[in-house]
Amino acid sequence: MITVGAGLLGEALDAQAVAHVAVDWRPPLPVEPGALARVLADPRRAAANGVAAGRMVSARPVLAGVRRAGEALGLPRGVFLHAGPPIEWERASGPMRGALVGAMLLEGLATEPHEAERALASGAVTLEPCHHHAAVGPMAGVVSPSMWMLEVRDAEHGGTAYCSLNEGLGKVLRYGAYGPEVLTRLRWMGEVLGPVLAATLAASGPLDLRALTAQALQMGDELHNRNRAATSLMVRELAPAIVTAAPEHAADVLRFINGNDHFYLNAGMAACKVSADAARNIPGSTMVVAMARNGTDFGVQVSGLGDRWFTGPAGLPDGLYLGAYGPRDANPDIGDSTITETAGLGGFAMAAAPAIVRFVGGDVPDAMAATRSMYEITLAEHPAYQIPALGFRGTPAGIDVALVARTGLLPVVNTGIAGRVAGVGQVGAGLVSPPASAFTSALAALAEAAGEAGQAKDPNM
Amino acid sequence: MITVGAGLLGEALDAQAVAHVAVDWRPPLPVEPGALARVLADPRRAAANGVAAGRMVSARPVLAGVRRAGEALGLPRGVFLHAGPPIEWERASGPMRGALVGAMLLEGLATEPHEAERALASGAVTLEPCHHHAAVGPMAGVVSPSMWMLEVRDAEHGGTAYCSLNEGLGKVLRYGAYGPEVLTRLRWMGEVLGPVLAATLAASGPLDLRALTAQALQMGDELHNRNRAATSLMVRELAPAIVTAAPEHAADVLRFINGNDHFYLNAGMAACKVSADAARNIPGSTMVVAMARNGTDFGVQVSGLGDRWFTGPAGLPDGLYLGAYGPRDANPDIGDSTITETAGLGGFAMAAAPAIVRFVGGDVPDAMAATRSMYEITLAEHPAYQIPALGFRGTPAGIDVALVARTGLLPVVNTGIAGRVAGVGQVGAGLVSPPASAFTSALAALAEAAGEAGQAKDPNM
Repeated sequence: MITVGAGLLGEALDAQAVAHVAVDWRPPLPVEPGALARVLADPRRAAANGVAAGRMVSARPVLAGVRRAGEALGLPRGVFLHAGPPIEWERASGPMRGALVGAMLLEGLATEPHEAERALASGAVTLEPCHHHAAVGPMAGVVSPSMWMLEVRDAEHGGTAYCSLNEGLGKVLRYGAYGPEVLTRLRWMGEVLGPVLAATLAASGPLDLRALTAQALQMGDELHNRNRAATSLMVRELAPAIVTAAPEHAADVLRFINGNDHFYLNAGMAACKVSADAARNIPGSTMVVAMARNGTDFGVQVSGLGDRWFTGPAGLPDGLYLGAYGPRDANPDIGDSTITETAGLGGFAMAAAPAIVRFVGGDVPDAMAATRSMYEITLAEHPAYQIPALGFRGTPAGIDVALVARTGLLPVVNTGIAGRVAGVGQVGAGLVSPPASAFTSALAALAEAAGEAGQAKDPNM
Repeated sequence: MITVGAGLLGEALDAQAVAHVAVDWRPPLPVEPGALARVLADPRRAAANGVAAGRMVSARPVLAGVRRAGEALGLPRGVFLHAGPPIEWERASGPMRGALVGAMLLEGLATEPHEAERALASGAVTLEPCHHHAAVGPMAGVVSPSMWMLEVRDAEHGGTAYCSLNEGLGKVLRYGAYGPEVLTRLRWMGEVLGPVLAATLAASGPLDLRALTAQALQMGDELHNRNRAATSLMVRELAPAIVTAAPEHAADVLRFINGNDHFYLNAGMAACKVSADAARNIPGSTMVVAMARNGTDFGVQVSGLGDRWFTGPAGLPDGLYLGAYGPRDANPDIGDSTITETAGLGGFAMAAAPAIVRFVGGDVPDAMAATRSMYEITLAEHPAYQIPALGFRGTPAGIDVALVARTGLLPVVNTGIAGRVAGVGQVGAGLVSPPASAFTSALAALAEAAGEAGQAKDPNM
């Protein structure tokens, strides 16, 4: 027997020990009749998507420096950045609130948590998405002016993007923790790690993140939840310059980086951000240039639609939990790290990282299948980011909203899972789907834009 | 049509565009009638092989220190070690001769190459295999008393094994080069690198090579021709201690190690050596405990047969050549690095390292097939060394001479290719098979030993 679509029939046959072949099929997304047709008929689409995808995969991100957020992003005192689409304190989830409280304490805008919460609730601080400042941040993604940022430049198209420094594992601000150990670490990062890395990069010159990412993909990383190879290659590359730039702090800095296999993640996120930003604002392009979550909403931005966000409710990841934690402890999906999937890495590159299944669940064939299915909704195969196990095929890069709508296939995201209570930290890791509604509303807007473009071009109408 | 065995018929069908299925079959090795049956009937065999394989895969190699060869191996002035089974100057190949000349110059036993050659030809220096001194060396594998050795201990069974420090790429002693830049580098290694690493290990404590190897296999290394992940992990682990132990040399040492993706190879070889040595001298065991080549002969040692070597002519690797080099520039197979295949890594673990095919030739399915076929001639699946792409199956470990003879399937070795002219250096990398005769003569000796054991046990005979 051949079964198609939802697994219930297949499961019923399994239960009856009837042999069957599962064929992967799903209905297209429920969009307004005609919208998909209008988008597909937009004469600008093919060329615009070619330009958008071409710019994204030809970007050459280099780690150019490390700078204070206040100065690098022009971030005044009293403005904090956060992950995902715009959100206010009232709708913010536990880990987002916790991280904002921690940033208040770090910046000396409050002396204890309750005072910080009151100030935040009263609007004393302006909250803006990282993405509105050419930046990205993992999990809560909170950036305050005194933090140091990795500065990544696109040597091909000239863009610049930023990401904060990774704090390590355990109780950390990005998962909403704000206890004394979190603040002590952040102060050390501000006083030692940031300046040492700034001096290191100034001495070593730019670090080629395109080459490093390409190597890491051949070493079992998918660059979202597995960054062990990339972190190791980065340490190796920078270690001599760290010693030269700061002999008195070198051992501590190397020990700190070595203690955290995700240290590279933030550099990789900025590299993906600067690559995706190179593809923004191509009229008629239906390519996704950002996917981001604030712990409440999952938002998408599309090249042809400027800086508009298309959002839906953030989902709950399905995966493996740490220790005694379970799904009830999980916060909805959070963080800007979906910029990796936006650029064709992370969940899209799982075939390069079979060992990831020990962390996010599933088995190795699932990881291979995840990558294979993403070719159905993407516009390009990355020329430099190759997957050896697929015969060196390029990663599927450049999500096309129209292909998502037509196939009903949503992007595969793999992610860390934050505890829903502020301060708990990471409770697991797994896979999550974006809400279909983010893509259907983006498609509706694309249909409208296609119509307007058609009218504008036809002087007789 | 179904074709079996040698490819000629298949190729003929290809030429005629006849569809056919190639079934992997080959005749058993040509051994004396009855020999294989006697070995298979040896009542000691199953249990002895269980002990031998069990000891090898349960070994827990740790990098315990770095010491001078003279002191660590009790190597007196005038004794040099070399790779492979025993050999004399007269039969030594170009790269082996070149490396011996270099060692003469390094040790001050000659002041120019011709003088060194004359002294070596006259027997002024005693040549002994590394394997006779609990050591291994890549390519020519020449060890002279002033060189520094990695000291690897087996925390499970208590053994110790040694390997020299990797010199890097380009013109290096192990490929037979002995020019001024080779000797300058070796002197720096003697004066700086060795002492710094010795101080580092003394400060950091032992480095767990079993854990590091297991991680590297999940990061695309097969630990013979691809050591990028293992080298990166090792640098990352040791960097803080290098800085603390030798702040004035740390940047140079880190730069040196970072310049060479094979730096880990030598530590890995010593780890494989100490693991295989734990399986030596189990009466009745048909398991291989060493495979090694001196550039002229390929030799095998077997657990149940003590320190005897079974040799055959070293083959010419089939692979990819660097620059303008080709097969005519290649030296026959050379080096102790086949200790990696002996322990279930290298060619046996190629399924973990799909990117290796860009270096040794073939395509990814070939690499997968190589590993899969080695399960047919091995006794165990390594419990810690797992291959994610095979669903975390353990690497095939512990070559059984009887299974090799019965299946006709020779171990898959992947290897660097040395230029046949001393001093040329590496000319390529590829795959090579050991000579079948090494295994047939080992099998004959096992048959004889089985007979003797049977007689010794039966007082009526």
